[in-house]
Amino acid sequence: MIIKIFHRVKFYETDLMGVVHHANYIRFLEMGRVEFLRQAGITLNELMDDGFLFPITQVSAEYFHPATFDDELCIEVTPVELTKAKMVFSYQIFLGETLCVKASSQNVFTNKETGKITRLPQKYYEKLELALK
Amino acid sequence: MIIKIFHRVKFYETDLMGVVHHANYIRFLEMGRVEFLRQAGITLNELMDDGFLFPITQVSAEYFHPATFDDELCIEVTPVELTKAKMVFSYQIFLGETLCVKASSQNVFTNKETGKITRLPQKYYEKLELALK
Amino acid sequence: MIIKIFHRVKFYETDLMGVVHHANYIRFLEMGRVEFLRQAGITLNELMDDGFLFPITQVSAEYFHPATFDDELCIEVTPVELTKAKMVFSYQIFLGETLCVKASSQNVFTNKETGKITRLPQKYYEKLELALK
Amino acid sequence: MIIKIFHRVKFYETDLMGVVHHANYIRFLEMGRVEFLRQAGITLNELMDDGFLFPITQVSAEYFHPATFDDELCIEVTPVELTKAKMVFSYQIFLGETLCVKASSQNVFTNKETGKITRLPQKYYEKLELALK
Repeated sequence: MIIKIFHRVKFYETDLMGVVHHANYIRFLEMGRVEFLRQAGITLNELMDDGFLFPITQVSAEYFHPATFDDELCIEVTPVELTKAKMVFSYQIFLGETLCVKASSQNVFTNKETGKITRLPQKYYEKLELALK
Repeated sequence: MIIKIFHRVKFYETDLMGVVHHANYIRFLEMGRVEFLRQAGITLNELMDDGFLFPITQVSAEYFHPATFDDELCIEVTPVELTKAKMVFSYQIFLGETLCVKASSQNVFTNKETGKITRLPQKYYEKLELALK
Repeated sequence: MIIKIFHRVKFYETDLMGVVHHANYIRFLEMGRVEFLRQAGITLNELMDDGFLFPITQVSAEYFHPATFDDELCIEVTPVELTKAKMVFSYQIFLGETLCVKASSQNVFTNKETGKITRLPQKYYEKLELALK
Repeated sequence: MIIKIFHRVKFYETDLMGVVHHANYIRFLEMGRVEFLRQAGITLNELMDDGFLFPITQVSAEYFHPATFDDELCIEVTPVELTKAKMVFSYQIFLGETLCVKASSQNVFTNKETGKITRLPQKYYEKLELALK
């Protein structure tokens, strides 16, 4: 499953170079990841209520083309790797046909109380496994 | 007690008008408030560990002069009103002699578990009372 | 004309109190204002290309109810006052039936080159006047 | 030249997991980079006034340990590579002895008018070369 979400760039997401500040794209990746999980049948609130957190352990981005205020960006999210303890996603952010950003993220699953890495229960894992196909 | 803190404007705090985005000044007020409380002998972590939160219930700002990247701002924090259930602060943000922003905030104290407004214990209230003189 | 936009709260818009950080609502107002102008037939890019900026000169907000991650907020934007040199908007942010925030903003129109307050040309003013009815 | 700057984590930099939101560290890198350049004798305002921009083309971060509100972080900036057209920096962010984040960034230099990659004039390049030793 590959998902796409659309985001219109906000005024407050720009900086004085007149374009989207590079750190904001890292937030756009999060938007995409949250929607991916929702479409896979999992909401983060459900996970948290169940005692799991999902901290990011790695993120990287390459910037090819700047986006600016009011641009309609398409954020494409592809799951790349899945174990019960971690996930890897890759992302492409487009402005029309133009590739703006390529990125990837890795997150683990942790126990909310202990902060330690933990394994996702089968009920979540199944859904993610299905979404990775 | 009136306190002053200094903040050098970050690149990511600007927007495409080339100046500090107006919403960021609301964050600068928070920086000032946190330091006021620290100098009054109270840290927010201590308050939270003790079961209190301090949500903002009102904020207002008037913008007179724009600041931009790398400007060294002086944020002046004046406590205006204090009860065991709420505090009011006023703020002035200066760039050199120039007044950039005048602002005020009101926060209440709430119980972390119930979310309800609560009264600060005497040990905190005394410190704040002293700082208001 | 009163407009409504919807915004699903992002993870990065929350703070460690578990709710939307109060400064982020000031950004939500901007989202609403931008959409109001678009529906009135004016885009900010058009205004800027034409040599106008629209800095915020006043903002105020009262917070009644906290919103949190993944909440779907409705931001209602009402134009309150219009001259060729400034606009005032009022806002209500709802979570379902619950009023979370009441707010208002004032902006002026300035000349992009000089930074001085200026008067909007008739072609823009007409559209805004119509939208205020 | 390796430089260190200190940053106390702001309340608004945390998220509902109770820790610094991962995208904010990307902003901390920028803080460090700006200070590195200042200590090398170059301010970004000077560069921009001279017609140069310095967009980020790559950024990556590995997260080892979460920081939270009021933590005093040390951001260590090491220049890694320099040509007249680009720079690479590496970063380590520490909380006391604990490594929180390892990161790197690459930026190019562009002509402010054309947006195209350009070569830094000798007067800037010399300073950077010296700072790389």
